Amino acid sequence: MRDICVIGLGLLGGSVLRSAVAAGRTAWGATESGSDAEAATVDGYDAGTDVDAALRRAAERDAVVVSAVPLPAVDEVLRRVAAHAPACVLTDVTSVKGPVLGSVRRLVPQARYAGGHPMTGTAESGWAAGNVALFDGAAWVVCVEDDTDLAVWSEVAALALDAGARVVPLSASAHDEAVARVSHLPHLLAAVLATVGGHGGPLAASLSAGSFGDGTRVAGSRPELVRAMTEGNREALLPVLDEALGMLGATRGSLASTGGLASTINAGYQGMRTLAEHRDAARTEVLVRLDAPDARDGLRALGERGGHITAVADGSVTGQVA
Amino acid sequence: MRDICVIGLGLLGGSVLRSAVAAGRTAWGATESGSDAEAATVDGYDAGTDVDAALRRAAERDAVVVSAVPLPAVDEVLRRVAAHAPACVLTDVTSVKGPVLGSVRRLVPQARYAGGHPMTGTAESGWAAGNVALFDGAAWVVCVEDDTDLAVWSEVAALALDAGARVVPLSASAHDEAVARVSHLPHLLAAVLATVGGHGGPLAASLSAGSFGDGTRVAGSRPELVRAMTEGNREALLPVLDEALGMLGATRGSLASTGGLASTINAGYQGMRTLAEHRDAARTEVLVRLDAPDARDGLRALGERGGHITAVADGSVTGQVA
Repeated sequence: MRDICVIGLGLLGGSVLRSAVAAGRTAWGATESGSDAEAATVDGYDAGTDVDAALRRAAERDAVVVSAVPLPAVDEVLRRVAAHAPACVLTDVTSVKGPVLGSVRRLVPQARYAGGHPMTGTAESGWAAGNVALFDGAAWVVCVEDDTDLAVWSEVAALALDAGARVVPLSASAHDEAVARVSHLPHLLAAVLATVGGHGGPLAASLSAGSFGDGTRVAGSRPELVRAMTEGNREALLPVLDEALGMLGATRGSLASTGGLASTINAGYQGMRTLAEHRDAARTEVLVRLDAPDARDGLRALGERGGHITAVADGSVTGQVA
Repeated sequence: MRDICVIGLGLLGGSVLRSAVAAGRTAWGATESGSDAEAATVDGYDAGTDVDAALRRAAERDAVVVSAVPLPAVDEVLRRVAAHAPACVLTDVTSVKGPVLGSVRRLVPQARYAGGHPMTGTAESGWAAGNVALFDGAAWVVCVEDDTDLAVWSEVAALALDAGARVVPLSASAHDEAVARVSHLPHLLAAVLATVGGHGGPLAASLSAGSFGDGTRVAGSRPELVRAMTEGNREALLPVLDEALGMLGATRGSLASTGGLASTINAGYQGMRTLAEHRDAARTEVLVRLDAPDARDGLRALGERGGHITAVADGSVTGQVA
């Protein structure tokens, strides 16, 4: 198993460091946040604030470098990777993948890169919010582009599997479209709902319960993190936002004209059933040989059909798909 | 304590019957659902399918009659009340109050009525979904109109307090505006989100987690119940829906033009903080004498300021308000 070097020790980076150590790897981290570095050190981890030194050590040990900083800070980390560890296997845990792929191609063109995104909550942040089990059972997208080196991809997938995640192979663009739907739109609708609720004053606070509490929960996330992920996914988010706007506008029109909301409410109920059916579908085990000429297409198709990878072996991967 | 007669033994009616019995009252129920009546009987409650007989018994015993049927069935229950128990204290647990008040005035003009709405979940339904603790700590709106008999209002408030609820006095119109904000809009946004998510197919099912799960939870509620409450509150819901549409449209415009979402996301975060501040505000105890000339205004003001009633005594009520 390769060593792991994590840059950024917040919720995600801190949990990557913990789970890599728990899996028996040698792992160290660096962050510009003195408080996160100190908290990690107090907890017994090899952590500091000298990012360049951590990367030089990664280069010496041929470690996997994990960028675990928010999107606005990714370019600066990549510049340092280019300076100190350009030949290392490189991944990231940023919540959008197309923009990071663009930055990697621009700033570290020689990188041995496969982007990643563990799909976990963002309501809490910082080292203290992380834990070794954060990724257990969660989806962790590991990106496959047409030029992705599948040996590199396997190294990144192994890191995610070690952490207990389901590895979902996808292109960056398929990832970004899907997270616009299931993560970024929910954050925007929660913000709208929390705002409209807030306008209801103390009475709204007194009467709000289940449906409002559920629908607004993520509106309490740190605004700068939500901005980074939603604004960073602008291209994929716009058409999804238009879909929601069109449907809400039609809902308004129907309520105003006929007074009926069956179309909206039935469509939502049907959406829930469809998603539950996908989740509950019987799955079969598949094997993808990584030296096959269509291996990249095979991996991406598996991810797009709701499947995931369960094991990485020498030259092949095992997965499950409906 | 007066006896209680509950018409409709689903989630709400069934829980009212259980909590009235638990509070030491004599209580019985009737429902047109043979399965709910049988389930209630098996559980040891006095329940049957003869609604008219239950109402005649209510008239004999001068019981409080509770209509606990969905909005589309309310008028039929009111006709039977007019025929068999027109002089009883009457309340209901329907999720909109203006339309029910209109029906009562039309169909049982002599009624001794104070409308009610316990604010609890609707994702489950039927007798089996109810329980004796359903209203514990929940808000239960009991309506105060200019012509409400406050002795009648006190009887209904006592029933809600017996069930462990916080009693919130409001006019029907203030109630309907507030629930449009904190209950009906959340249901419509959840339906939109579930639909847009469903369009993402098996990949959306595979990647959706926290924010999507929270934001869509109530889209799994029975569509006919969600339609009844949202369509029934058309007048109050339209302006709230316009508020949400305007904000979502501005969000789209901002993302498309400048790429920025700060305005939307910060407003949502601020809305959450404002609501939390209202909830956490220090409260003082107040006493409202029911024979005061401005008692109705005092009760409604208390509710609108986020307060609630904690006890009903002879001729006065005690409440808490920030």
